[in-house]
Amino acid sequence: MLALLALLVAAIASCRDDGSTATPSTDTAGEADLASNAADIAAARGLTPDDITAALKTYMPSGRHDDYIMFASGGHGGQLILVGLPSMRILKSIGVFTPEPWQGWGYGSRDSMEILAEGQPNETQTVLWGDTHHPALSETAGDYDGQFVFVNDKAHARVAVVDLRDFETKQIVKNPIAMSDHGGSMVTPDTEWIVEGGQYAAPLGQEYAPIEEYEAEYRGMVTFWKFDRESGRILVEESFAMELPPYWQDLCDAGKLVSDGWVFCNSINTEMATGGIEKGNPPFEAGVSQRDMDYMHIINLDKAAEVAASGQTTEINGFDVIMLDTSIAEGLLYFAPEPKSPHGVDVTPGGDFLVVAGKLDPHVTVYSFAKIQEAIAGGNFTADPYGVPILNFDEVMEAQVELGLGPLHTQFDAQGYAYTSLFLESAVARWALGGPYADKHPEEGWSLVSKQPVQYNIGHLAAAEGDTVSPDGGYLVALNKWAIDRFTNVGPLLPQNFQLIDIAGTGDTMQLLYDMPMGIGEPHYAQIIKADKLNPWEVYPEVGWDPRHQQVDPDAPKVGEERIVRDGNNVEIWMTAVRSHYTPEPIEIQQGDHVIWHITNTERAYDATHGFSLPGYNIQLSLEPGETTTFEFTATESGVFTYYCTEFCSALHLEMVGYFTVEP
Amino acid sequence: MLALLALLVAAIASCRDDGSTATPSTDTAGEADLASNAADIAAARGLTPDDITAALKTYMPSGRHDDYIMFASGGHGGQLILVGLPSMRILKSIGVFTPEPWQGWGYGSRDSMEILAEGQPNETQTVLWGDTHHPALSETAGDYDGQFVFVNDKAHARVAVVDLRDFETKQIVKNPIAMSDHGGSMVTPDTEWIVEGGQYAAPLGQEYAPIEEYEAEYRGMVTFWKFDRESGRILVEESFAMELPPYWQDLCDAGKLVSDGWVFCNSINTEMATGGIEKGNPPFEAGVSQRDMDYMHIINLDKAAEVAASGQTTEINGFDVIMLDTSIAEGLLYFAPEPKSPHGVDVTPGGDFLVVAGKLDPHVTVYSFAKIQEAIAGGNFTADPYGVPILNFDEVMEAQVELGLGPLHTQFDAQGYAYTSLFLESAVARWALGGPYADKHPEEGWSLVSKQPVQYNIGHLAAAEGDTVSPDGGYLVALNKWAIDRFTNVGPLLPQNFQLIDIAGTGDTMQLLYDMPMGIGEPHYAQIIKADKLNPWEVYPEVGWDPRHQQVDPDAPKVGEERIVRDGNNVEIWMTAVRSHYTPEPIEIQQGDHVIWHITNTERAYDATHGFSLPGYNIQLSLEPGETTTFEFTATESGVFTYYCTEFCSALHLEMVGYFTVEP
Repeated sequence: MLALLALLVAAIASCRDDGSTATPSTDTAGEADLASNAADIAAARGLTPDDITAALKTYMPSGRHDDYIMFASGGHGGQLILVGLPSMRILKSIGVFTPEPWQGWGYGSRDSMEILAEGQPNETQTVLWGDTHHPALSETAGDYDGQFVFVNDKAHARVAVVDLRDFETKQIVKNPIAMSDHGGSMVTPDTEWIVEGGQYAAPLGQEYAPIEEYEAEYRGMVTFWKFDRESGRILVEESFAMELPPYWQDLCDAGKLVSDGWVFCNSINTEMATGGIEKGNPPFEAGVSQRDMDYMHIINLDKAAEVAASGQTTEINGFDVIMLDTSIAEGLLYFAPEPKSPHGVDVTPGGDFLVVAGKLDPHVTVYSFAKIQEAIAGGNFTADPYGVPILNFDEVMEAQVELGLGPLHTQFDAQGYAYTSLFLESAVARWALGGPYADKHPEEGWSLVSKQPVQYNIGHLAAAEGDTVSPDGGYLVALNKWAIDRFTNVGPLLPQNFQLIDIAGTGDTMQLLYDMPMGIGEPHYAQIIKADKLNPWEVYPEVGWDPRHQQVDPDAPKVGEERIVRDGNNVEIWMTAVRSHYTPEPIEIQQGDHVIWHITNTERAYDATHGFSLPGYNIQLSLEPGETTTFEFTATESGVFTYYCTEFCSALHLEMVGYFTVEP
Repeated sequence: MLALLALLVAAIASCRDDGSTATPSTDTAGEADLASNAADIAAARGLTPDDITAALKTYMPSGRHDDYIMFASGGHGGQLILVGLPSMRILKSIGVFTPEPWQGWGYGSRDSMEILAEGQPNETQTVLWGDTHHPALSETAGDYDGQFVFVNDKAHARVAVVDLRDFETKQIVKNPIAMSDHGGSMVTPDTEWIVEGGQYAAPLGQEYAPIEEYEAEYRGMVTFWKFDRESGRILVEESFAMELPPYWQDLCDAGKLVSDGWVFCNSINTEMATGGIEKGNPPFEAGVSQRDMDYMHIINLDKAAEVAASGQTTEINGFDVIMLDTSIAEGLLYFAPEPKSPHGVDVTPGGDFLVVAGKLDPHVTVYSFAKIQEAIAGGNFTADPYGVPILNFDEVMEAQVELGLGPLHTQFDAQGYAYTSLFLESAVARWALGGPYADKHPEEGWSLVSKQPVQYNIGHLAAAEGDTVSPDGGYLVALNKWAIDRFTNVGPLLPQNFQLIDIAGTGDTMQLLYDMPMGIGEPHYAQIIKADKLNPWEVYPEVGWDPRHQQVDPDAPKVGEERIVRDGNNVEIWMTAVRSHYTPEPIEIQQGDHVIWHITNTERAYDATHGFSLPGYNIQLSLEPGETTTFEFTATESGVFTYYCTEFCSALHLEMVGYFTVEP
C-alpha cells in the first residue's frame, strides 16, 4: 500500500511541471485530425467535404429532438446547464445561485430577488454566486419522474429547488448550521428527503472557534431536507440535521429498494488534519492522506427521522440537530472503514451494494448492504474517537476490483456493468458487477472488463438514468476537467471537455463518439433523464400567472385595466405587454418617487417571450407568455430613459419601447 | 406601397394569436423527424443506429478543431459567446458587462471590479448587465486580424474592449452624452475608430427634458471612439461625437477601400414619434412607420476627425461633440432617403455599394458610393427640418432588388452573392450583386437567386469573414429568434435557433446543415473569423502576470516570498497557488480587519487554472497559469470559513483549501 501511495504521489507531483496528468489519447484517429481545415481533414481521411456535410445531416438533421437531457451543475458558475444527448447541444442554462439577466433572474423581478435574498448565507455581505455540485432529479419509486431538480452550493451550504414545469428556481435554503457542503443534493427514492452532506468541518451554527480547538469544537454534519411535492418546497420546519465528527464528509447516496431508508456518506480527513505547514503541521494534501482507511458513514434515515420527530434534538441557529451522542445511543450512525480518501459512494440499482472509490487506491471497494445489516445486528464494533461504532471491514466488504489510478465515481447501466472514472489515468473503466447482476453479462462478476481513454482528467461521469433503480445505459458522458489540445485555443481559461461515449455494447466495445466543449462553467456532476419524461409547459397556463407560486396573481395587470396610480411619492404601475406594445406607455415621474411596477405578458403563442429592460436601474426582466412580474425601485437618477423589449419579438420589436422620464 | 404596408401589418397582427410568424419549414426531412427515439428515427430513415454513430464520428471526430470561430453577442445576457464552426459548439462565454463567477469576472478581483465600475452609467445605481448587440473584430486593411473584439451595450450606450491574447475584457467606456446605442460597435478598416451610433433620442448628456420638447431638446448621436492598438485601449480624450437630429439612428457600417473614411448609419423614426397613445399620439409601432422614407446618414469621418481636432466642438458632459450646425456647415453629414424603417446598412466588400434593407419594404435598396460622391459634389439638395442636406434618391440609388417580406440584414461571400435575412418570411435570400461583382456568378446582377427557409424568425445572419474586404463564404449562420418546435421543450423560455447553412455552391444550392440551440443569451449579431487568425496565449507569458495591463505585476506574490503583513487593522496577504496548495495557508484575522489579498498562480502547464473562492464574502476568482490577482474586503462576518480551489485541478484538488477564521 505504501509503495502504491509513493507511486501516486510521484504521479501527482509530476503534473506540476508539464501538465502530464493528461494521458495521451489512444484515439489515434482523433489525434491525427488536429488540423483546422475541413478540406484537408476530409482528404486525409479519404472523404470529400460533401461526405462531412452528409454525415452532419445524417447525424442530427434539422428538427430532430434529443433522446436524453443531461442536467449538469455549473460548478462555480452557480447555475444548472441542460445538454441534449446525443447531440451534446446546450439547450439552456438555468439561473440558480447567480443572477442571469437573459432570464431576468436576479435583475429586479421581485420574486427572483426574494428567492436570492432568502438564501443569503449571512447578513453583512451579499453573495451572488454559488458552486453548484450535484444536481438530483426528483424520483418516484427510485426512477426519475421529471418533476423537480435540486442542486447544492458547496461554497455556502445551500440547496435550491427548480420546478420542471417551467425550469425556474423556486427556492433556495441556506443550511443554518454549516458553511460548506458537498454530499448534496441526493434524493431518497420518493423524494421525501433531500440529502445534504457537509464538507469542511467548522463549528456548527457558523460560530467562531480557533483552529486549535478543531477536535473539540469543529464538527461535520449531514442535513435531511423534507420536501413537499405538492407545494414544490422544502419544509424547513420539518427538516433536521445530524451532528457528525469533524471529518470531511464528501459524497452521499441514498439507499433504494432493499436499502431504502438508509443513507451512505463518504468522508476524508478522518486524520483531522487542520493544515498549517507554517505551524509545523503537514500540509492538507499530505495531512488528509495519511491513513489507509477513512470512514463510510452508514445512516439509518428512517429511524433518524423518528428520533428527530420525537424531539430528541438540540436547536442550533433555530434548526433541529440530532447530536452525536443521541445518534450513537439510538443506533442511527455506524462507520465502515473505506480505503483511501474516497471520493464517491454509489448504490447499485438494486440497492444491494455500495461502491466506494478511494482516489488513492487503485481498487473500488464493494460493500454488501445485507452484510452491513448483519454486522450491525452482530454488534462486533470498535469505535472512533467520538464513540461512533465502526463495523469490521471484512464483515461488510463484498469485493474489491482493481481498476487503475485515481478512481473517483461510479455509474451503472442495464447490462450489469459499472463504469468508474479514473482521474489519474484519464479513462473510464467498465467492470462487471457480481451477485444478482452477473447473469446479465458474459464476464465473471466483480472484474474489470475494459477501459476507454478520455481526454483528459475525468472527474464525474454520468450514464443515462444512471442513478435510478433501472438505468438505461446506451450513453455515458465523461466530465473531463481538462481539454488541453481538443479544441481551438480561445485563451488561457479553457473549456472542459465532455465526451459522449457509446456504452450500448458489451465487453470491450465502448467507443468514444464526440467531444463537447463546456465553456460556460465547470460542471461537477450531472444526471441524464429520458427526454420524454419531461413535460414542461409551453406557455404559462393562464394569463397573469405568478410563476413563483404557480397560480394566477389576483393583482396581475389585465388588458383594459392598465393604469398608473400615484399616492404621494409612491407610483404604482399596472402594465401589459404584447407584440409590439407596452400599455400604458409614457411613464413620467419625479426624482425620488418610489415605483412599484407590474407587467403581464398577455401572449398565448409558444415562444412569444417579451423582455423588459429599464436602463440605468439594473432592471432586466424576461416575461414568458402569460407571466406577471413585479419590480420596484426608487427613482434616484433623473433624466430620460427608454425602457424596451430586449427579446426580439416581432418585425416591430425595435418599436416596442417607451419613454421613462424622471424630472429632477 | 400602402397596399403592401397593409399586408405587412396584417401579417404582423396575425402573429399575436398563434405565433404564425413562424413560416412552416419546407425542410420536410427535418419536419418528419420530430420524434425523440434514436432507433425509431434511424429506422424511419432506412438507417441503423450504427449509421448514426458512424455519421457522428465522421462529422466531428474527437480532437478535430473547428475551422472558424463565431463571436456572437449575448444580447441581454451581456456577454460575448464563442461558437466553433462547423461544429456549432459553444467554446466559451466571455464576461463583459455582466459578472460571471466561473471566470472570476466581477466577483472580487480588483481589476474586474474596477473595469465594471469605470463603465457605470450613473452614480446612484449599480448596473451589472448589458444588452450586447454588435461585436466587431479588429481589422487591418479591412480584414479581421484576430487581435481585439469590441461590443456595445445598447441598454446603456457603452462599448467594451476584449483582448484576444487572453479573451478577457480590458475596458468599458460609457458614452458620456447618450443613454442608448445601437449602431455599434463597428470598426474602420484599420481599427483607428470604433463607431457607436445612437438609438432612442434623448437630451444629450443624460439631461432631463419633458417629452413634449422632443423636437427641440432631444437628439440623436454617433460617437467615434479612438482606439490605440498599442495599449489596447480606447482613448476617450481623443474621441468625439456628432450631434444628430432626434431620429433613431440604427445600424452603422464603416466604409472600406473606395469608401474608406466614410461611415453610414441608418435611421428610423424620422417621423419623430414620441409614443403616448394615451395622449392621442399614434403608438410607437405605427408612429415610427408612417413615412415611406427614412434617412441614411452619410458621414465624412475623416473630415469630421479634422474638425474635432481643430476644436470646433462643444463640450457636453466633458466630451467633445460636433454640433449639428457645424456638421452641416463643414459638409460632414448628408442624408439619403431610404425605404422604409430600415434595419441594416451593409457595405459591399469592395466598399463600392451600400445595401439597405427596409423591414417594411420587400426590397433591398443598393446605393452607389460613387454616385453619392457625385451627388454631394452636384449640390442638388433638399433639407430636413434641422437643415441637413438630403441627396436625391434617384441620383444615388443603384438598384432595388425585391427579396420578400421583412428584409433586415445583409452579408456577403466570395462569389459575388449577397445574403439577406427575411424576418417575416423566415428565410435567407441569396441574391446576385451587380457591377464589378457580376463576373463572379452566372446570374444577372442585382437579382434574387434563391431562398433558404429557416426555423424561425431570422434576425441577423453572419457569413464567414462576411464583413471584410475579402469574405470567405462557405458557411452562413442564421440567427433565428424563435425555435418553437426545433428542440426538446425545456420550459416556456426557449432557446434561439442558430442554423448553419452551406453556401459554398452557387445558384439554388444553399442547404441547411444543422440546428444549434442558443440557450445562454439572445445573441443579436455575430462575426465569424478564420480560426487560424487567432493566436491567443496558452498560458500567461510570465509568472506574476497582470492581465489588465498585460505585463508583470512587480508586487506579485512570488514563491518563497509569501507572507501576511499586519498594520493596525489592515492585513495584506501575498499568496501563491500551485497544485495542490495555497501558501501561506491558515489565515486568522479579527472581525473588522480590512484585508488586501494578492494571489499568483505559479503554474506553467497549459490548462492548469486554479479557482479561489472565499465563501460568504462574494469572492470567486479564476487564476489562469501565471496570473496574479488582487482583491480586498472588510471582514464584517465572524466565523470559520474555508477558502478553496473551485477549479478541479488535480487528484488532490479537494485538499486545496485553507481555513480562514475571523475572530469576533
